[in-house]
Amino acid sequence: MRLLIKNARALVGTHPAELRRITGRSMAGLPMLEDAWLTADDGRITGFGPMAEWPGIDDWNDLTVVDAEGRYVLPGWCDPHTHTVFAAPRDGEFVDRIRGLSYQEIAARGGGILNSARMLRDMNEDDLFEQAKARLEVMMAQGTVAAEIKSGYGLSLDSELKMLRVVKRLKEALPLQLKATLLAAHALPPEFKDDRAGYLDLIVNELLPRVAEEGLADFVDVFCETNYFTVAELERVLEAGAAHGLPGKVHVNQFTSIGGIQAAVAHGALSVDHLEVMEPADLDALAGSETIPTLLPSCSFFLGIPYGPARELMERDLPLALATDHNPGSTPSGNMNFLLSLACIRLRMLPEEAVNAMTLNAAAAMRLEEELGSIAVGKRASLIVTGRVPSLAYLPYAFGQDHLDTVIIDGRPVRAGAALA
Amino acid sequence: MRLLIKNARALVGTHPAELRRITGRSMAGLPMLEDAWLTADDGRITGFGPMAEWPGIDDWNDLTVVDAEGRYVLPGWCDPHTHTVFAAPRDGEFVDRIRGLSYQEIAARGGGILNSARMLRDMNEDDLFEQAKARLEVMMAQGTVAAEIKSGYGLSLDSELKMLRVVKRLKEALPLQLKATLLAAHALPPEFKDDRAGYLDLIVNELLPRVAEEGLADFVDVFCETNYFTVAELERVLEAGAAHGLPGKVHVNQFTSIGGIQAAVAHGALSVDHLEVMEPADLDALAGSETIPTLLPSCSFFLGIPYGPARELMERDLPLALATDHNPGSTPSGNMNFLLSLACIRLRMLPEEAVNAMTLNAAAAMRLEEELGSIAVGKRASLIVTGRVPSLAYLPYAFGQDHLDTVIIDGRPVRAGAALA
Repeated sequence: MRLLIKNARALVGTHPAELRRITGRSMAGLPMLEDAWLTADDGRITGFGPMAEWPGIDDWNDLTVVDAEGRYVLPGWCDPHTHTVFAAPRDGEFVDRIRGLSYQEIAARGGGILNSARMLRDMNEDDLFEQAKARLEVMMAQGTVAAEIKSGYGLSLDSELKMLRVVKRLKEALPLQLKATLLAAHALPPEFKDDRAGYLDLIVNELLPRVAEEGLADFVDVFCETNYFTVAELERVLEAGAAHGLPGKVHVNQFTSIGGIQAAVAHGALSVDHLEVMEPADLDALAGSETIPTLLPSCSFFLGIPYGPARELMERDLPLALATDHNPGSTPSGNMNFLLSLACIRLRMLPEEAVNAMTLNAAAAMRLEEELGSIAVGKRASLIVTGRVPSLAYLPYAFGQDHLDTVIIDGRPVRAGAALA
Repeated sequence: MRLLIKNARALVGTHPAELRRITGRSMAGLPMLEDAWLTADDGRITGFGPMAEWPGIDDWNDLTVVDAEGRYVLPGWCDPHTHTVFAAPRDGEFVDRIRGLSYQEIAARGGGILNSARMLRDMNEDDLFEQAKARLEVMMAQGTVAAEIKSGYGLSLDSELKMLRVVKRLKEALPLQLKATLLAAHALPPEFKDDRAGYLDLIVNELLPRVAEEGLADFVDVFCETNYFTVAELERVLEAGAAHGLPGKVHVNQFTSIGGIQAAVAHGALSVDHLEVMEPADLDALAGSETIPTLLPSCSFFLGIPYGPARELMERDLPLALATDHNPGSTPSGNMNFLLSLACIRLRMLPEEAVNAMTLNAAAAMRLEEELGSIAVGKRASLIVTGRVPSLAYLPYAFGQDHLDTVIIDGRPVRAGAALA
């Protein structure tokens, strides 16, 4: 299947193909090629250039043509932190929070992650798969072309494996790129409430080997936080993950700063995620490391907790990434377009910085930077074609609207708008 | 044209027909009729009841049928404060704000309202009309069935009249209910920078009589704020408006509390809008008055200013209304569904309270409470049919998503979803 995009107002994010990530002080640089064409074959970008130098097409058979006049073409959104496999929404807890309970109080009453875990254990794999598939189809229509999905609502050998098998089936069933993360250390299951070490033993000695053997996960994660898992427990899981070839992508510094970032960096974690509460030492630990700081502003919006320090992280020249954190408790939205608005409105990121954080750096936070995240020959032709908007800045500015027209994954439209001939 | 809705999971907002507004302590009460039918004829609701008692339909000809199984049916959103007629977005100023300028600093540099005024004066009436029409069509698809639109980007006799004539044409061209408000006192035009009284004279002695004579406005408004218009100027405009039969709907207490609420209440204003900065005396002035406090949380979200004190206003038993404030400077979104999420997430309103504030009380803030705002026999059949969502609370909870399926105005679908047979 071949694709031609012509007359694009601009191709956005035409970074050099060899660029793997873009660090903070350079993130305002988002190369664009105006009045341009792009071709793809067999799912990969084969060429692009200015319309004035368009070589033309010899064979118009079996060619999908997108007339992008007046429209921007961007690399599709990459979402490197989600919990999109879950059993049910938690809108009841949402009302409890409005009535005055805190997220932590709801968790203490058996709500929160343990509520999701109870519901997930009772749901069969097929139903979990169908629900998650429907959610991911909505996200694809909103421009998401790659996502990481975590386990962590199973909290038992069987249920964690069930979640990861669902992600494996989703990888096969859907065209977007998916990565799976084992997050068994998401909360301490009630059965182990008096035996923390026992649950860690289960993760390290039984679950991780099984997951590695079946090829069910790409990464390993721990919710390192007061009342969840300690820094020592984080280190134990990261070491066990590394022994099975699974890099860490970890939850740290959401509510408190307890040293999780330092430990994650020391263990070569691919990303540290959340970072709403940052001490100077946490920023110091990240400087000069390979670890990608990943902010989740939709979670801050929904819970009313502080936003992560995007500008400080960029001033330290770190390769900031953004993700939705899509999950039923703290972020019931997988919409990256709203995330773009939050990044500009609340994190005070320039539109160009936010786009880089949601494409190239977000791809890097999933080890997909050679496949996705920019418009470059050889990369996947997974692209967003916008509506006829007056500027790139209009996308985050006119918040709460749907500004996309067409979404293409691996050269094929997954959402067909007016730009499709 | 006749309409039948059957199998609705619930009809929401079936208040007694004679209820004109709902005050704060009662706002958590949102009557619902489960498993229900509704009929309309000639644009008006003719009946509704439980499916178990459905009388059936004799004549199926020329009947629009909506099968609302699993779907909620709500009164359409009413948006009692917008500036939807404008010449161009101000996404450039949005980027200026990210770079560190405040809304007030941008205004001081000739941006802000005066920027919109310059652009509007240069645009012909037809183009203004077409642009506003397109925006309102988007809003209708998002469930808005009534909106108030203000002038205030003209700031001269001719340009203010031009704006109001555009609203008049919009009233004729579109099915939603529109109300027009003369907001000439939105900012002091540069030509009158050394002659404030001269501009007030123009409004009171020339513009208001012309507007009244041509029937171009339903209400009069003043931006009463430090650096904009004083309380004495507010009073002068409200008195002149009253002399021409135009009630006041005024901008007060957005950045500072300077007595505008007290003056507006004393002059019998229909609504006081914004209210981000409230002193105890401001709350006292509203208590026991007929004036409807109207909050604009989308503006707070976009500007990063405080949110209005929704819970305090409701605890005072006031009939709180919500509106988008849709405008190119401080709220580039007319999406009431996102407003619903903001109301619950940021204002800590229960979903039921927010729905009442966006329907019945919002209708009352436009004097449309006998036509719209609840599901009652005789009212306009202007209704929202949701997707198959698990609960009413899911609508605000799963933020940034489109949860609507079908939108009906005066008995006719303006957005046709899966529920339409």
